[in-house]
Amino acid sequence: MGTRSRANSACRRWRSAAALLAFALFAIPGSAQSLDSWNDGPARQAIVRFVTDVTTPGSPSYVAPEDRVAVFDNDGALWSEQPMYFQLAFAIDRVRALAPAHPEWKDTQPFKAALEGDVKALAASGERGLLELVMATHAGMTSDEFALVVREWAKTARHPTLRRPYTELTYAPMRELLDYLRASGFRTYIVSGGGVEFLRVLAEELYGVPPEQVIGSSIRTRYEVRDGRPVIVRLPEIEFIDDKAGKPVGIHKFVGRRPIAAFGNSDGDFEMLEWTTSGPGRRLGLIVHHDDEAREFAYDRASAIGRLDRALDEAGRRGWVVVSMRNDWRNVYAPAR
Amino acid sequence: MGTRSRANSACRRWRSAAALLAFALFAIPGSAQSLDSWNDGPARQAIVRFVTDVTTPGSPSYVAPEDRVAVFDNDGALWSEQPMYFQLAFAIDRVRALAPAHPEWKDTQPFKAALEGDVKALAASGERGLLELVMATHAGMTSDEFALVVREWAKTARHPTLRRPYTELTYAPMRELLDYLRASGFRTYIVSGGGVEFLRVLAEELYGVPPEQVIGSSIRTRYEVRDGRPVIVRLPEIEFIDDKAGKPVGIHKFVGRRPIAAFGNSDGDFEMLEWTTSGPGRRLGLIVHHDDEAREFAYDRASAIGRLDRALDEAGRRGWVVVSMRNDWRNVYAPAR
Repeated sequence: MGTRSRANSACRRWRSAAALLAFALFAIPGSAQSLDSWNDGPARQAIVRFVTDVTTPGSPSYVAPEDRVAVFDNDGALWSEQPMYFQLAFAIDRVRALAPAHPEWKDTQPFKAALEGDVKALAASGERGLLELVMATHAGMTSDEFALVVREWAKTARHPTLRRPYTELTYAPMRELLDYLRASGFRTYIVSGGGVEFLRVLAEELYGVPPEQVIGSSIRTRYEVRDGRPVIVRLPEIEFIDDKAGKPVGIHKFVGRRPIAAFGNSDGDFEMLEWTTSGPGRRLGLIVHHDDEAREFAYDRASAIGRLDRALDEAGRRGWVVVSMRNDWRNVYAPAR
Repeated sequence: MGTRSRANSACRRWRSAAALLAFALFAIPGSAQSLDSWNDGPARQAIVRFVTDVTTPGSPSYVAPEDRVAVFDNDGALWSEQPMYFQLAFAIDRVRALAPAHPEWKDTQPFKAALEGDVKALAASGERGLLELVMATHAGMTSDEFALVVREWAKTARHPTLRRPYTELTYAPMRELLDYLRASGFRTYIVSGGGVEFLRVLAEELYGVPPEQVIGSSIRTRYEVRDGRPVIVRLPEIEFIDDKAGKPVGIHKFVGRRPIAAFGNSDGDFEMLEWTTSGPGRRLGLIVHHDDEAREFAYDRASAIGRLDRALDEAGRRGWVVVSMRNDWRNVYAPAR
């Protein structure tokens, strides 16, 4: 090899290195090719059009990276929520685990119903009953202890009808959407009616969403020094309900910016979608419609869990994209990560 | 120029491009040379040693980037706080601006004291009086309206003795420290006893800290649709006091991770420093000691504002770095950005 061709070969290597690094730095927006689990229908097209519009420099709809905030509901939007919220299944399992220390639960509602797996009686205990269940199982320990309990539970618990770990019941298309948005310079937040400390234990591994980007309902906590060791103690007192009109409040409190894209599946997400899509400039609101009895569940207006009624009625005139799980999704569940 | 030298010149350009991009990607940790306003004493050395330890791959003290969280108090740690918290000056200015619509304030405390600039009577009204002042001036409008009021105020208000805009009273060494930590892969949070919505308006421009990384005290808010337009309304009700034991609670609530570095200046930061520095692995706690009457203010154990007593006593045995403003800082104030 002569000097010339050696120089050219070295040059090629530098050029490849530059190209590779440029790709790593500027590979924005993310490739829509990664939306593999979406059929090429109107929903996928609306998503790609939106992302292209807000990320193309010089476009009239261009949005600076710091304002690219996307918010996702969790139950029914990122993973399943039937026949009951997964966190409720966790609470019931905790009641069973703690029952030996609470003989009185055998004769007291809602604990009796939880112990007997009587979902109907549990539902009949109403919001007050469910709160009692949460207080008894989610409080009275440190945050570190609680995180450990959730982590252990998630390793072994199985969905009652699908017979798979709950952690395998996240939606492949939505995980691809999270990745696609992040690759396009978005920060992706979860805004859940579920408990923030429950979800934070799982969100990073399941969705690539770090704890500081999980917003949820919370109970009060207190800082204490126990035997010289500082701890955060969980108290049996509701602090914040991150649902319905609580969702924009939670987003404002934690993010301090109005999102430009919101993803939900129920009337509990109505205000979050409304808040997001009524801002100025280009916006995206999207609702996952559970119409796939064969692969997941089919429910909307009449369901106690994940009721979708008003948001479905108003989606059209508000320009929200309604995703048909049956028609728009090639795959439903993601393989375990 | 022959083919050969043209090829070499192109090659040099590719090589420069690769080098530049590699620098942009891998310029971690940040250069300590940017800590220009710090004298080369024990405080600066402790900071650089800490950052080097946690960012050097393979070091036993190495910390992954996602866990590099640093928390900063604001009043007295990032900007001045004497002779009164700047937000209190804002509240007094608001009382004056709103007074025409409230003739009763002329004869009611603490408003009378605020209108007359009687700081002593204001202090005598106690926590309850100050809360009344905050409620009357910080609530009853939307968050957008409030942000506008703060922004306008910051443009024109002047410090009573230093005769400069408050926005010019941030500490140059601390701004350099924020930059240095961020360049070293840290996420920098402000954790202030002051109001979160007040501070968020200013923090991005003053400190490069985005709204989602500002934690502070808050009043309740409510989501409302007014004339078809969704707004966040500020209510006259305290939600959270982000001071003392409230600081670790706020950090846990907003970040969900324990910081590895904490920067404060008063006993109000004690628990935040304790929580941060008692975790496993390498930690840094630092206290700014106001001992510089010539260039700023000198106060500690006896001061009503920014009282530093217990934290000063315990700094030694807890390994917290105490910064002497007089000796460790070459410059105090940063030029306006």
